Amino acid sequence: MAVYTEISDEDLDTFVAGFDIGEVLSCKGIAEGVENSNYLLVTTQSPFILTLYEKRVDPDDLPFFLGLTEHLSQSGVPCPTPVRSREGEVLRSLSGRPAAIVTFLNGMWPKRVQNHHCAELGRGMAEMHLAGARFEMSRPNDLSVSSWRGLLATCEGRGDEVKPGLTDILNAELEVLEQHWPTNLPTGIIHADLFPDNVFFRKEALSGFIDFYFACNDQLMYDMAICLNAWCFERDGEFNTTKARKMLKAYAKVRPLSSDEMQALPILARGAAMRFLLTRLYDWLNTPDTAFVTRKDPLEYLYKLRFHQAVKGPGAYGLNI
Amino acid sequence: MAVYTEISDEDLDTFVAGFDIGEVLSCKGIAEGVENSNYLLVTTQSPFILTLYEKRVDPDDLPFFLGLTEHLSQSGVPCPTPVRSREGEVLRSLSGRPAAIVTFLNGMWPKRVQNHHCAELGRGMAEMHLAGARFEMSRPNDLSVSSWRGLLATCEGRGDEVKPGLTDILNAELEVLEQHWPTNLPTGIIHADLFPDNVFFRKEALSGFIDFYFACNDQLMYDMAICLNAWCFERDGEFNTTKARKMLKAYAKVRPLSSDEMQALPILARGAAMRFLLTRLYDWLNTPDTAFVTRKDPLEYLYKLRFHQAVKGPGAYGLNI
Repeated sequence: MAVYTEISDEDLDTFVAGFDIGEVLSCKGIAEGVENSNYLLVTTQSPFILTLYEKRVDPDDLPFFLGLTEHLSQSGVPCPTPVRSREGEVLRSLSGRPAAIVTFLNGMWPKRVQNHHCAELGRGMAEMHLAGARFEMSRPNDLSVSSWRGLLATCEGRGDEVKPGLTDILNAELEVLEQHWPTNLPTGIIHADLFPDNVFFRKEALSGFIDFYFACNDQLMYDMAICLNAWCFERDGEFNTTKARKMLKAYAKVRPLSSDEMQALPILARGAAMRFLLTRLYDWLNTPDTAFVTRKDPLEYLYKLRFHQAVKGPGAYGLNI
Repeated sequence: MAVYTEISDEDLDTFVAGFDIGEVLSCKGIAEGVENSNYLLVTTQSPFILTLYEKRVDPDDLPFFLGLTEHLSQSGVPCPTPVRSREGEVLRSLSGRPAAIVTFLNGMWPKRVQNHHCAELGRGMAEMHLAGARFEMSRPNDLSVSSWRGLLATCEGRGDEVKPGLTDILNAELEVLEQHWPTNLPTGIIHADLFPDNVFFRKEALSGFIDFYFACNDQLMYDMAICLNAWCFERDGEFNTTKARKMLKAYAKVRPLSSDEMQALPILARGAAMRFLLTRLYDWLNTPDTAFVTRKDPLEYLYKLRFHQAVKGPGAYGLNI
């Protein structure tokens, strides 16, 4: 659930007048997105999304995020594109916050993931990775393997409140990850948060990606590892190999995978599970249970981690099958 | 902040296919409205609002509310109009809730009320009252004078937690209201909740009314009394006579006020202050302060009540001035 900055009518009119997008007909807060305040802005031209960036996003990163989505759109990867002001800016200020107007993306995220969604995601992700290769800015992944020890340390002592023995399990896993983390795979821009609510579909076709606020440079297969975690487990906890295979096959049809990339999948999938386990654990321990946001269960990712720990090779994800 | 019922993609598609409104392009929860779940539904035809009625609205009242807005729209009073299904229904079921699709109303509610808003509101309210006279259904006002004693009784003993002596003040006021409440004024359909966030404007012109979920039959001037409370006090607590005069004059130009109606304004304004004081007090005492909703301060209405208690006649609201 998003925070909302109150925008005065006069401020909104002045802000919108800085863009060539027609006159405001309506502006309503949207109940989606956690990091920012999003408004559906309907003008005499079209619907748009107005985003006010709240405190969780580093303002210094905004030119990267907005530049990336503009670049991807121009390269044919569907995503909300910043609208440039009459003076050519993508980022301005509204009600004391950095603010941008972006194009409205048709489609809806799948509430129930089906096999065809996974295939479409694989294809679309590969196209995004190819298009991202030509983007000139870069941003390090500050939630990758080198950050996990520090993140775990902040939960130390309290991690066992969630589950007895949890911090021991995580410390042991971290040893393995730090020792075996690949470093030689193809890199580029990854989305790094491709959960179902960030991928829109219209009927069965992928209509676009949203929320690039974790996008960064990293090994491309790490994006896939995140998706294996986020899209291929059923609600009962079972891993669905068909979904994984469809995702990987559709991806590889657009950008062929090297043998190293395939072999690295199990360890990358463990790492991705670790990353979401740790951030959820941190949020769990640092968010009062009466707060405005819904806390996500960190243990969901412990079960996923255990699945990946037990696999014997990339065949578990449907490769070579 | 609204509650949100999760809607599956399949349920939404099936639901929308029952209407002649094109295909779904997008459906996003809107962060407005307290009683219901509202979604902005964009189809290949147009934007619409999809409302799922949550528990606070009595399903038996829905035909009245939906019938009223359809009637008002047809009479030229701008408000969201229910879209009839292919089978002619205004109310169907979605995700286990009564649900309706209504037209999208352009405009925004004024974050800062100005004089011209009050004049427009007066005119628009009078037109709504005239149009409502031809509506055939009726619904009693279950939050009028006869309900207040019961409402106060539920707060008895705890009202003084909010302010020492509060329940004594309210009991004394209730005596006066019950004794002097008018019963002979022109009646009809009133909106009964015309706060600024329920009245949309486009530039300076009123573009429509929303949220008719308190609409009922009552003395028409009671709607005005609510608006005097909701629109004419400044943030510092000062009553703005200019705003009241503009509202009343613009109203009377469309529907002339009788002398009885004018004389009754002070007592009606006291009653309206009492009604919102009591419901806010009830919510204050019965909502944990950690809950998902923002509690509104009941004492704001104690100060308003005191203003109305002190006035010497309708001149205080700008009449005959």
